[in-house]
Amino acid sequence: MASPAELAAMRRAIELSRNGALTTPPNPDVGCVILDAAGATVGEGWHERPGGPHAEITALAEAGERARGGTAVVTLEPCDHTGRTGPCTQALIAAGVARVVVAVADPNPVAAGGAATLSAHGVDVESGVLADEAAAANARWLTPFRTHRPFVVWKFAATLDGRSAAADGTSRWITGDEARADVHRLRAAVDTVIVGSGTVRADDPQLTARLDAAGVAPAADRAVEQPLRVVVDSAGRTPATARVRDDAAPTWIATAAEVGAGPDGRVDLPGLLTRLYDDGRRYVLLEGGPTLAGAFWRAGLIDRVVGYVAPALLGAGPAALADAGVTTIDAAIRLDVTDVKAFGPDLRITATPQDHRKA
Amino acid sequence: MASPAELAAMRRAIELSRNGALTTPPNPDVGCVILDAAGATVGEGWHERPGGPHAEITALAEAGERARGGTAVVTLEPCDHTGRTGPCTQALIAAGVARVVVAVADPNPVAAGGAATLSAHGVDVESGVLADEAAAANARWLTPFRTHRPFVVWKFAATLDGRSAAADGTSRWITGDEARADVHRLRAAVDTVIVGSGTVRADDPQLTARLDAAGVAPAADRAVEQPLRVVVDSAGRTPATARVRDDAAPTWIATAAEVGAGPDGRVDLPGLLTRLYDDGRRYVLLEGGPTLAGAFWRAGLIDRVVGYVAPALLGAGPAALADAGVTTIDAAIRLDVTDVKAFGPDLRITATPQDHRKA
Repeated sequence: MASPAELAAMRRAIELSRNGALTTPPNPDVGCVILDAAGATVGEGWHERPGGPHAEITALAEAGERARGGTAVVTLEPCDHTGRTGPCTQALIAAGVARVVVAVADPNPVAAGGAATLSAHGVDVESGVLADEAAAANARWLTPFRTHRPFVVWKFAATLDGRSAAADGTSRWITGDEARADVHRLRAAVDTVIVGSGTVRADDPQLTARLDAAGVAPAADRAVEQPLRVVVDSAGRTPATARVRDDAAPTWIATAAEVGAGPDGRVDLPGLLTRLYDDGRRYVLLEGGPTLAGAFWRAGLIDRVVGYVAPALLGAGPAALADAGVTTIDAAIRLDVTDVKAFGPDLRITATPQDHRKA
Repeated sequence: MASPAELAAMRRAIELSRNGALTTPPNPDVGCVILDAAGATVGEGWHERPGGPHAEITALAEAGERARGGTAVVTLEPCDHTGRTGPCTQALIAAGVARVVVAVADPNPVAAGGAATLSAHGVDVESGVLADEAAAANARWLTPFRTHRPFVVWKFAATLDGRSAAADGTSRWITGDEARADVHRLRAAVDTVIVGSGTVRADDPQLTARLDAAGVAPAADRAVEQPLRVVVDSAGRTPATARVRDDAAPTWIATAAEVGAGPDGRVDLPGLLTRLYDDGRRYVLLEGGPTLAGAFWRAGLIDRVVGYVAPALLGAGPAALADAGVTTIDAAIRLDVTDVKAFGPDLRITATPQDHRKA
């Protein structure tokens, strides 16, 4: 059983793991705390970016010799393979750690087996400690192993009365500079952006990330890795001149003819996501419009909501979400708010669907 | 000129003044800080409820003899008349305060004249210090002196996608217990609740306060002072059996025939508010629905927005606000968010119209 000190360390490790949220994709969000033999914290780390040191390595480096005979508390099972960095299991064994407390087992068959290796080398391993909390913090990475589709974040921007455009269709700009900069950071973190053809025809967005995930405008010689732009275009009506077709990022115009159609004749969305998953895509930003968002909700394909709410009122114009398959209040899609943050005058509300979490 | 210590004390006094927001109506929200002769804080107070001590009296009581030769920093000009309590000017003079720093002059002809009285007794008076900030904190009380109508708070409850009911009209309950309890506190603080006849026919609300402004459910023998319930009912279509007609609180069915009609044939809203003002009403809670709220916005009659946003999505159903006279994004009604607070799972967003503040 985990000691109170180990539980506290795991809470801290989960908190640390969140530091990487925008920069670690496609890698997992992991945090680690090293306790010395007396139970005092002597090292902390989190995984910051692909190619960078894993959380355990950073925490062990800070702890140094004080790790010997101590405990490593880590949110994800330590890796047992050599990727861009060496296996964490070997580093933990070499540091003389006596015990490893793990929240979530690694579902990745390539990297898994860490707990068994540690045990075989005489390290005491305890797994499943605060597993739900740690899994929630790493849901973006863990979910696709279970669902076999990318993790889908639905992003919308709306006024306080829920409008995403005015009655005449104008929507630039509902939110301010700071909120729009945050969207660019989010686009740089995902590997795929999905939009409906209606939004392309109405707004002609470019859908590129103009800041990197750390929020920095890149130098001319160091481009942001751009997400794949996917236009869900059942009937192939995306204009040849649409900005989304430019060469700033790769683009896929996904038609019903190519992907297959659902019962409504429109692009089969589960099929679309499976296709993206099979192509190695794990993290999707769904940018609208309201009709496409409604179709994703009806199909139960949304894992997280990021809503930018502007302190403004329109009283008319399209809502942020249309036809989500809900007709009465008891059937409302209920969410858990996980974060509220101000970006300039606007609020960013992050939330998770309740049913999905139970699933 | 106010010293840095006096400016800091005024900021603190403004903060203190907010403590009374729900309990002071119909009195002003006032805060006071007493500095001793050396500039150290020796007393603090705020006005809590009608009939209770004014902010200056509470602060002077805490300061005691240390007030002598010191400075009273107060958000509203000290009163110079005897109401339910004695004049604050006399208390300040008796305490031997050497200087009084005031943010906002008292616009109330009955209580004004405090600064002149203090000066006449040799007290150094400085007015207008952080006046804008102090006026914003006391806008509910100050605004009617300028507008000659009650201060109007528009309250709405909606989902994150801006719906105030589902497609089938059901809306119980969009928000949770905590948010609904907060609405009852707000109803106990105002003197008038306004609703449209459409909402009465659709939801049949009782519109009474079932908690007092402090959030306490009253004992059977000590009723909450209930606000006047006003139904804006241009054509007199409020059913005889509507709950809003019960004897739990006074009710006025305001028809166009009685109040007068605007160019659209509906109840003339500025005329309605003037009528309420002339009847001594100073604080109105506008509870909807969307059509009536839109009419209030078109007439420029809303001073504050209190929106309860539930972390839920409906994708269909009426919006919280309809036809506010805005057709394009550049004409959006822009607000300044002054407070965001969680009530159970819901968020309460309080905001002020920008144009109104400039006016």
